[in-house]
Amino acid sequence: MKSPFDRAVIIGVGLIGGSLGMILRRKELASSVVGVGRRIENLKTAVALGAIDRYVVDPKEAVQDADLVILATPVDTYERHLKEWASCLRSGAIVTDVGSVKGELVVRAEGHMPAGVHFVGAHPIAGKEKTGAGAGSEDLFTGRRCILTPTELTNPEALERVRALWQEAGAVVLSMDPYLHDKILGAVSHLPHVAAFALMNALVEIRAEVPALDLAGHSGGGLRDTTRIAASSPEMWRDIFIWNRENVVGCIKAYERSLGELRQLIQMGDAAGVEKMLERAKEEREKFPIRS
Amino acid sequence: MKSPFDRAVIIGVGLIGGSLGMILRRKELASSVVGVGRRIENLKTAVALGAIDRYVVDPKEAVQDADLVILATPVDTYERHLKEWASCLRSGAIVTDVGSVKGELVVRAEGHMPAGVHFVGAHPIAGKEKTGAGAGSEDLFTGRRCILTPTELTNPEALERVRALWQEAGAVVLSMDPYLHDKILGAVSHLPHVAAFALMNALVEIRAEVPALDLAGHSGGGLRDTTRIAASSPEMWRDIFIWNRENVVGCIKAYERSLGELRQLIQMGDAAGVEKMLERAKEEREKFPIRS
Repeated sequence: MKSPFDRAVIIGVGLIGGSLGMILRRKELASSVVGVGRRIENLKTAVALGAIDRYVVDPKEAVQDADLVILATPVDTYERHLKEWASCLRSGAIVTDVGSVKGELVVRAEGHMPAGVHFVGAHPIAGKEKTGAGAGSEDLFTGRRCILTPTELTNPEALERVRALWQEAGAVVLSMDPYLHDKILGAVSHLPHVAAFALMNALVEIRAEVPALDLAGHSGGGLRDTTRIAASSPEMWRDIFIWNRENVVGCIKAYERSLGELRQLIQMGDAAGVEKMLERAKEEREKFPIRS
Repeated sequence: MKSPFDRAVIIGVGLIGGSLGMILRRKELASSVVGVGRRIENLKTAVALGAIDRYVVDPKEAVQDADLVILATPVDTYERHLKEWASCLRSGAIVTDVGSVKGELVVRAEGHMPAGVHFVGAHPIAGKEKTGAGAGSEDLFTGRRCILTPTELTNPEALERVRALWQEAGAVVLSMDPYLHDKILGAVSHLPHVAAFALMNALVEIRAEVPALDLAGHSGGGLRDTTRIAASSPEMWRDIFIWNRENVVGCIKAYERSLGELRQLIQMGDAAGVEKMLERAKEEREKFPIRS
């Protein structure tokens, strides 16, 4: 049986790229999987773990006869990458990505594609604190959502092939406009990350005034949960916040208004007003599905 | 062997009061445990579960020959309760509480004690989403912290007897000044609750602008964790925020500054500045002990 793809190339063999490589190889979704990266040690680990068949250092050489190129580097590097090697792609090739921001990035990526090369934006919503190919696993995407972001320019066949790939990876595949993706993720993912990072920093400021405040020692379940994602990668989240800045800033402003409103009610001792705000929050939170 | 207490009375036989009753009875820390409350159904459940021996409706009758009175009602009701029955207490009795706010409340409670009656403030840091005696359990406090808040007026022997009680309940017992308690809890507990409630409300506002935003459907691990405590009791948290308003408002202001600073850096596209803030947050968060 012929594999769905002949020669797949993964640019950036980290947690996501490495996990995809394992899936492509073990499920025989590609005849060969070539990795491209800067850190040779990580590429050797990826070969040892069966995430890639082999690696090359020069992406131009890697992509020239690929029919699938997965761009799995930080979103801030997309332009640099595409400028370097997109012109080497052969007609009929599909380029897809795994970035957490879409919108403008998808439109720019499309602009870099030579004639006959198809770009399909994808955002698998999976991750963990650890990074690198060594943290990858075949079941990283099982049951997780993957959002595809087709545009008017997206080739329907390429879209279906990328969708099939993510379905094989076990993901629940959704599609939406790349700009809507950024609005929604700005609210449900980027804002909670801003909230957690800023909460930790606020506590550091408060501790400067209350030296007896031992944050680690006094951390209860509430503090631990609300700040868990403040331990996420600063580099990755810096890029997400800046690339999605318009939506993220809008969401932060909404949050500042909501906090300011609650602060004023507390300050005035308006018990009924405070309770009303807490009830509205509780009601919405209780609509979330219960997960294990 | 004589029990440490003869006649214990629990005013407010909810999750905390009911759990304490179970511990007092099963560990034979009191010869009898009488419950006082408004909801007869709940009191019957408390008897059936062995949290109390019996209940009475009139607190004045209940407390008159008690040597231990545990005030386990919402903090906003303390004054009303103490005004009603404190004058009926006999000399030598100990009154203690389980409230999440101390400071001024402890000083006021002390002011209500007749001569020879000792008040000891206590705050067991335990709880769960469910409420009522039916949700109580003997091991609710096992391994959890209980903060005692003695003042210059606290009787040392009464303090030791309350400390011994909490140690028997399995708690890790700490002591601190009641006002310092409120500063610390304001930061590590009350502020994260404000953050979670306000975040849910901000998302409701954002959804008004983005109708495709299905908060429950799009909720990932980050959003779920940061908002988990927004499902807490609005009545209880309303009272905590208002009774600790000075500290809570100060903490919210610090949080608003921290959010505003991060927003401005994102808005300006200051990648290095954003990364620095995220790194500081990550560094602090990683100092938290890892728990199962």
